[in-house]
Amino acid sequence: MKVHDRVSDLINNQDLQSVHQWLLQTAPLDIAEQLSRLETNEKAVVFRLLPKDRALSVFEALEPVHQQELLASLREPNVREIFEAMDPDDRTKLLDEMPAGVAKKLLDGLSPKERRLTSILLGYPKDSVGRIMSPEFVDLRVSYTVAQAIERVRRYGREAETIYALPVTDEQLHLVGIVSLRDLVLANQAAPIGSIMKRELYSVQADEDQEKPARLMREADLIALPVTDREGRLLGVLTFDDAMAVLEAEETEDILRGGGAEPPGRPYLSVSIWRLARTRLTWLFILILAATMTVNVLSYFEETLQAVITLSLFIPLLIDTGGNIGAQSATMVIRAMAVGEVRFNDLSQVVLREIQVGLMLGLMLGVIGFLPVMLFFGKEIALVISISLTFTSTFAALAGSMLPMLASRVGVDPAVVSAPIITTLVDASGLIIYFLTASFVLGL
Amino acid sequence: MKVHDRVSDLINNQDLQSVHQWLLQTAPLDIAEQLSRLETNEKAVVFRLLPKDRALSVFEALEPVHQQELLASLREPNVREIFEAMDPDDRTKLLDEMPAGVAKKLLDGLSPKERRLTSILLGYPKDSVGRIMSPEFVDLRVSYTVAQAIERVRRYGREAETIYALPVTDEQLHLVGIVSLRDLVLANQAAPIGSIMKRELYSVQADEDQEKPARLMREADLIALPVTDREGRLLGVLTFDDAMAVLEAEETEDILRGGGAEPPGRPYLSVSIWRLARTRLTWLFILILAATMTVNVLSYFEETLQAVITLSLFIPLLIDTGGNIGAQSATMVIRAMAVGEVRFNDLSQVVLREIQVGLMLGLMLGVIGFLPVMLFFGKEIALVISISLTFTSTFAALAGSMLPMLASRVGVDPAVVSAPIITTLVDASGLIIYFLTASFVLGL
Repeated sequence: MKVHDRVSDLINNQDLQSVHQWLLQTAPLDIAEQLSRLETNEKAVVFRLLPKDRALSVFEALEPVHQQELLASLREPNVREIFEAMDPDDRTKLLDEMPAGVAKKLLDGLSPKERRLTSILLGYPKDSVGRIMSPEFVDLRVSYTVAQAIERVRRYGREAETIYALPVTDEQLHLVGIVSLRDLVLANQAAPIGSIMKRELYSVQADEDQEKPARLMREADLIALPVTDREGRLLGVLTFDDAMAVLEAEETEDILRGGGAEPPGRPYLSVSIWRLARTRLTWLFILILAATMTVNVLSYFEETLQAVITLSLFIPLLIDTGGNIGAQSATMVIRAMAVGEVRFNDLSQVVLREIQVGLMLGLMLGVIGFLPVMLFFGKEIALVISISLTFTSTFAALAGSMLPMLASRVGVDPAVVSAPIITTLVDASGLIIYFLTASFVLGL
Repeated sequence: MKVHDRVSDLINNQDLQSVHQWLLQTAPLDIAEQLSRLETNEKAVVFRLLPKDRALSVFEALEPVHQQELLASLREPNVREIFEAMDPDDRTKLLDEMPAGVAKKLLDGLSPKERRLTSILLGYPKDSVGRIMSPEFVDLRVSYTVAQAIERVRRYGREAETIYALPVTDEQLHLVGIVSLRDLVLANQAAPIGSIMKRELYSVQADEDQEKPARLMREADLIALPVTDREGRLLGVLTFDDAMAVLEAEETEDILRGGGAEPPGRPYLSVSIWRLARTRLTWLFILILAATMTVNVLSYFEETLQAVITLSLFIPLLIDTGGNIGAQSATMVIRAMAVGEVRFNDLSQVVLREIQVGLMLGLMLGVIGFLPVMLFFGKEIALVISISLTFTSTFAALAGSMLPMLASRVGVDPAVVSAPIITTLVDASGLIIYFLTASFVLGL
């Protein structure tokens, strides 16, 4: 039996004692997962049963869309308290989900300090680093000793989202280095910060897009990345958990676009049917428009088809195979670009490799397929199929590798020209190759 | 001009002074990226110019396949020194890339301590947590004071891969809690560890698969996860950077399978053409076998085709659209499962949603397409196309959502039954729907 059914039942049977028991035995993350599956009113009932300190952990583990749903059914003082306790960057994400009126009311209820921190983040554009950085940090000076620095961390660290990476600044708050808490704890107490800090450091500007710094953090294994303004003055710190969330969203986008859909922007089960359809309709429409090319190509060769109706039997197999090889190339190249293994400069090398792979695969399939087709449909048809397979495969690999790279060059997300588009484009060209080959071999 | 061409040229012109200059101005991560693009002998030339402390950072940032290539062209004492300085888990990854003979020789050259640590990891199966955990950690006891704990961290912390999460154990090394370095630094010096540690903690067993704990770390924002044996005795610590690398590899696998290919297991440009083809051939072969169903279906309806040749013109458009909708459903559901938004228990809810979405999309496309098809091909053909589009879309959404979930139920990676397989399966069924509709509407 599903746990959330069980929790649901307990609530409906007024067995709040058992719900309470369950809440005490379950980790906040798992409670959050179950909560997100309950009806709105059930969510509120369960949440109110949580001890205060656990309530916040559970709330923080919820997706913004469920946080909002929950807040709407809680009482004013509870809402205010939770909202005040959130980290500024999580608060900003939640506000993005809310109608302007509600958001304003919540902001007005904040303490002046938290309101100020939140406004800073809200001032940066969506998808910029500034929007998800933590504006509460502990910064050190070059002249501090390690002991003084630890003293400062102990005094101001409680407020900061992370103290594992401590930016070092000059008097004008210009970033000049970074010290990890690890190095600080392991260093000699009397050593000056200037002697243990890393001067050669990564940083990012607050108005930059989130994806690149997030990838950098994963590649360089950084726990936190200092965020500055354009003059290099420290504004905040980007923590690894927020960076990983950015990458997860980017990867979802890449994966869904690779399947011909747009990310709906919230958990699957919370999206309405209508919104789900909308995230897919645009893509489908583009794809069906592209597919009308195949109707045109076939109309053009209608007489050939009429003469040798057997040719029509292989249309799906042929275009499927071409489409699959194109999709493979596109997927491989897009992923290699996403993880930084391949860049636009590698275009000629990549395309050359893919052409070879496509040719090799096409030849193999053509050779393997020749005999069975010959047995059932004769030597000539078998020859047409094998030759078409070879040429179509090669062309598909060429198109599949080149188009995403060209797209990235002109600033379009390569995932936009991924499997579905490539497949459809390759279909039309595959048909042309097929009928030209047939005309030639069969002498039509 | 490409940087690696420039570096290459400098080496060929014997302008090692400029290479040296470039090495001093560039971050280790970027040097590693350029190194991986150079020829084997060039790699060694550049690497030897690096100051010793930077050389190790650069080496650690390289992919195992490039590390191996580099080691093969360095002198014995250098190799030994680098190998000794690596973290045990990175060393294990590198050994996996090497021929057994070379691996043994390298292991024999290690100090007894490092050899022992490496053997521990090598004792766990591939893809298990034990293989990538860090066996060097600092553990605390419940009875320590904070001051004693910090003293212990300062004494033994240098060896550990992370000191940000400090496991607390009893005398038999059973894991009983965890303390973050953050809490340790911020706590009162006299407080006992038992009073500040978290008793409710996540941990993982060394022989478990890597993916689930890695996802847990991302969801719960954990910097490190304690690894135990089956009796709960502490064996090591899994750090977030290794967990993120696991997730990146898993995501690559999902993405490539979604495009009908298998991950080649090393960076794209380092894979041979032959290996690239091999990662795709199996899939293609399965897909082409599945596609022969379409030949059978069409053979069965050959007479209908012969009677109304116009029907053949729409075959690609119809199967493409069905395939696209099936691919969309499959991609959405697979991703939702991967990030934990949907589980097998949600099957009926998910399939019902997708059927509705498929029906809605099919109806829209059918209605939009009716007029243009009628204008060119007459009312009856238009009716056949619109009706087939609606039914095929609904069926595609059903198959696309259900198959991946059923696969996951029987322990098969859902990504295996993703877009390409779904597309091919939907093609055959779409053709059946198409010709049955045509027979009915046209009265054939």
